[in-house]
Amino acid sequence: MSERITLAHGNGGRFMRELVRDVFARHFANPALDTAADAVALPAADGTLVTTTDGFIVDPLEFPGGDIGSLAVHGIVNDLAVSGATPRWLTLSFLIEEGLEIARLDRIAASIGTTAHACGVAVVAGDTKVLPRGQGGGLYLAATGIGTRGADVMLGMTRIRPGDHLLVSGPVGDHGTAILLARNDFGLYGDLRSDSASVLAFARAAVGIGVRFMRDPTRGGLATVANEISLETRLRVVLDEAALPLREEVRGICEMLGYDPLYLACEGRVVAVVDPARAAALLAAWRGLPGGEHAAGIGTIETGRPCVVLRTALGGERLLEELEDDPLPRIC
Amino acid sequence: MSERITLAHGNGGRFMRELVRDVFARHFANPALDTAADAVALPAADGTLVTTTDGFIVDPLEFPGGDIGSLAVHGIVNDLAVSGATPRWLTLSFLIEEGLEIARLDRIAASIGTTAHACGVAVVAGDTKVLPRGQGGGLYLAATGIGTRGADVMLGMTRIRPGDHLLVSGPVGDHGTAILLARNDFGLYGDLRSDSASVLAFARAAVGIGVRFMRDPTRGGLATVANEISLETRLRVVLDEAALPLREEVRGICEMLGYDPLYLACEGRVVAVVDPARAAALLAAWRGLPGGEHAAGIGTIETGRPCVVLRTALGGERLLEELEDDPLPRIC
Repeated sequence: MSERITLAHGNGGRFMRELVRDVFARHFANPALDTAADAVALPAADGTLVTTTDGFIVDPLEFPGGDIGSLAVHGIVNDLAVSGATPRWLTLSFLIEEGLEIARLDRIAASIGTTAHACGVAVVAGDTKVLPRGQGGGLYLAATGIGTRGADVMLGMTRIRPGDHLLVSGPVGDHGTAILLARNDFGLYGDLRSDSASVLAFARAAVGIGVRFMRDPTRGGLATVANEISLETRLRVVLDEAALPLREEVRGICEMLGYDPLYLACEGRVVAVVDPARAAALLAAWRGLPGGEHAAGIGTIETGRPCVVLRTALGGERLLEELEDDPLPRIC
Repeated sequence: MSERITLAHGNGGRFMRELVRDVFARHFANPALDTAADAVALPAADGTLVTTTDGFIVDPLEFPGGDIGSLAVHGIVNDLAVSGATPRWLTLSFLIEEGLEIARLDRIAASIGTTAHACGVAVVAGDTKVLPRGQGGGLYLAATGIGTRGADVMLGMTRIRPGDHLLVSGPVGDHGTAILLARNDFGLYGDLRSDSASVLAFARAAVGIGVRFMRDPTRGGLATVANEISLETRLRVVLDEAALPLREEVRGICEMLGYDPLYLACEGRVVAVVDPARAAALLAAWRGLPGGEHAAGIGTIETGRPCVVLRTALGGERLLEELEDDPLPRIC
């Protein structure tokens, strides 16, 4: 096999067949996967089917704490998890730029296989296209997940009420800041790793205590989820600056470079809206989970003009507006 | 709204929300679509679930007979159809290059909406990412389809037997040749249109008469499907050159430019392998369908050294080898 991806790896012929066999089929092996079929049958499963799709264009492809492959699996798993579903199956579309090292693709495929296995999802179908050199960014991935959800799970923004509490399952802005550092554009170095991880355990705990709504704050970060809640419910979201879990490194790097960490992506966190009477129970449950030690109550839903307000440590208020420019392209 | 896609259209904030609302939600509207949710629930459906995924990178984005949007819908519908399934739901991931005209994206989204409606599939989930200028080819699409299949449908290469007949539902190489012309690289012009279309009616007719195996000859064309059959069954596939339906324009352009139309993509054809006793019935059924007037019996499955052989009009034999180089990148 050649060392780099060529256009012929995307033409449907011998090189593509060998790539699928030697790289993808090897790392994704599971009973439902059939790389020779046009479409695959899924095993029967109980519950309502739930689906989600996402494109991944992160740069660099590999970064501290993950790579585009693990990010894609976690991204899909988390979108299903915060919808109250159990992730089961995954399809993957690879758009590979001519010239990508096959060893790198192999590492990413291995990472997908390991991550999917750890999350309990099976890669059931895939596709490979090769983009001519200069028309891609190394590798883009598009993933679709299918999960199942019990009929008793009730979640949604329409269930949010004034007085509800907002919780987050861990520090915010880690992924965005780690990517920023990994690009080496600023001559800054640090030990910060992406928080890319499955939030399934956190989502299950939240469903268990009757959470009203959950979302994973990826692109646009915590401030964007807060704005989505405010826009949809026409309620006021008040965040308490002093309560926000934020790593010192994230705070420092963002201050230095002029980014607001509340708008930077997380890839392993959940924001939950919960009845105030159940907030303490959810916080305790989350703090008892691995990786949940920094979970925190971070704000409340209030009546009043619909907007997102950050109540600062000094008692002032700052409006967190909906994102307009893009602070950091190719973040996820 | 601005006239071109900016990085901010992919950041999760206001511009992205407006793009989703004004372009995607408008053209894809259906009861199952929820553009504000992380994941959507699918209505209950009978039968085995079948899924497939595909990336689309065609250049140019719009061409005679279709565009990247209709191509994506047909591509997914056809992969499900040749698997004996009824296509039901579709997810779409948009990777848009910064600078794409929004009017063009709107036309493509409208085409997706119209094509999906005509094929009876609902777009249930989507995602938008924006690639910085120079890191994309205008627009890439990744689509995943979910369909349902009755328990009585039995299809697969393992059912192929020596003596079986090969049929194709219409002329081959139209899509590849139309794309080649649309690129205007050779100063050639013609009326040729892509064959991009749903093959659902052809697939249903084939299932009805008990077809053994079907595939749509996209990338790599008819010769690649024949090679896949030979590789998998270890049988010999013999194609009859005189019987192959081929438009005069396709033949002429390919001769002039040195392409073999048997390796060029079709996007609205089916190749079927069928018991010889049922071949005439399938051919009659296909010819009775709109667009099926050029359907033909094109060869047989034989014992002997596994390979694909073209029996020429003069009685000679030419080996159709598995594709190695890529004759035409970004074809679908």
